[in-house]
Amino acid sequence: MDQQEALTTYLLRRADDVLILGHRLSEWCGHGPVLEEDIALTNRALDHIGEARNLFQYAGVVEGKERSEDDLAYLRNERQYLNAKLVEQPNGDYAHTIVRSFFFDAYHLPMAEALLKSVDPHLVGIAAKTVKEAAYHLRHSSEWLIRFGDGTEESHRRAQAAVDALWTFTGEFFATDAVDEVLIKAGIAPDPAAILSTWDMVVDRVLGEAGLQRPAPMHMASGGRTGHHTEHLGHLLSEMQYLQRTHPGASW
Amino acid sequence: MDQQEALTTYLLRRADDVLILGHRLSEWCGHGPVLEEDIALTNRALDHIGEARNLFQYAGVVEGKERSEDDLAYLRNERQYLNAKLVEQPNGDYAHTIVRSFFFDAYHLPMAEALLKSVDPHLVGIAAKTVKEAAYHLRHSSEWLIRFGDGTEESHRRAQAAVDALWTFTGEFFATDAVDEVLIKAGIAPDPAAILSTWDMVVDRVLGEAGLQRPAPMHMASGGRTGHHTEHLGHLLSEMQYLQRTHPGASW
Repeated sequence: MDQQEALTTYLLRRADDVLILGHRLSEWCGHGPVLEEDIALTNRALDHIGEARNLFQYAGVVEGKERSEDDLAYLRNERQYLNAKLVEQPNGDYAHTIVRSFFFDAYHLPMAEALLKSVDPHLVGIAAKTVKEAAYHLRHSSEWLIRFGDGTEESHRRAQAAVDALWTFTGEFFATDAVDEVLIKAGIAPDPAAILSTWDMVVDRVLGEAGLQRPAPMHMASGGRTGHHTEHLGHLLSEMQYLQRTHPGASW
Repeated sequence: MDQQEALTTYLLRRADDVLILGHRLSEWCGHGPVLEEDIALTNRALDHIGEARNLFQYAGVVEGKERSEDDLAYLRNERQYLNAKLVEQPNGDYAHTIVRSFFFDAYHLPMAEALLKSVDPHLVGIAAKTVKEAAYHLRHSSEWLIRFGDGTEESHRRAQAAVDALWTFTGEFFATDAVDEVLIKAGIAPDPAAILSTWDMVVDRVLGEAGLQRPAPMHMASGGRTGHHTEHLGHLLSEMQYLQRTHPGASW
């Protein structure tokens, strides 16, 4: 695999993670439990979609096929989306939404920090913006998780159920394949395995403060990075792509 | 009608306008025609809901019944919502959404500017923030309307259809009743009739630039300010209130 192909794939993986998570969070928009959280979740969605735009724009340049950010965001088939399966999981209850974000944030922040050391200045520029946002996101989701875990019996039960249900989707962020190998070797991308220790530390600390149990080792889901998704992504895409598919170009 | 009662009603009318319009715009969240507009519409929704929060908080204080902003936003019946009918109208196509916003913005900005002269310092404080946002909103919706009107035949047709369909809902912003009279007399609220001349001027200028026709005088809808709504509000509320009704207090 040449570097151009690897970098294009790498950028789409990163972009799809935040596009799909941003879309999921935007489903709360206007439906949050309280006005303040409605606004907080929507602001998070905007951060994620903003990062996705930056990554898509760069992917379009690297790829050299003149696909626009909107082509890349909206006009691919399910098998061409390369996000990790975690982010496509449905919102569920608010505890579920928070745990999904927390698991992502605990990966997203150290990943962005590591990208600051990339030899690719475009990636460094995008990561610099992400680091600030991701730090805020992690604080927000950690605080809610602790509040749920350390709250009522009902909130604790829901938070633990979400941790147990989503745990299987946390391994995919740290797997590597030929795409990563090419880019790690070139100093463009960090080794995700190196980020795992930070993720473990943050997750253990927050679960501990929340009084929640870290699940026992289990089978870890995979496939998202090569376009094999859970059934939830198809539903999300048919909703997300509806307008573009109905009014191609939407130029009127 | 005493001043406390009038001010409470006045604040709820202002708050409900932006809450409901904010909710309508948030329905685009994740469904915009292009990523950039998706983000722009969602940012507008956040501005509106932010203003609604400020107005609800103040309404809660004036009313003195210890209802929170969330109680006021989520837990009233349809007949207790006092927004103008324009803002509850469905999104329709993008031209429809833009025209609805434009008609509102052309009222919202001069209204907020007039409130800067209120003798009520709380209202002045809220209006000061709104003026900046509303100026941006009006620029955004005007530019899109001109782009649609002056664009393709299809975009022109859609924009004119939206102008014609929504025109009947533009009179309600300038009607007055006992609530306004008490507050105008006390120097708390501006006379909406005084804002109408600015609205007319802006609307004529932008419709002219867009090459769109101002509709002939017609019957103007009313009733929203006293809780009589079109059928669309009920659907919007059942969606918006779902979570609060299902999990009262949402304290877990």
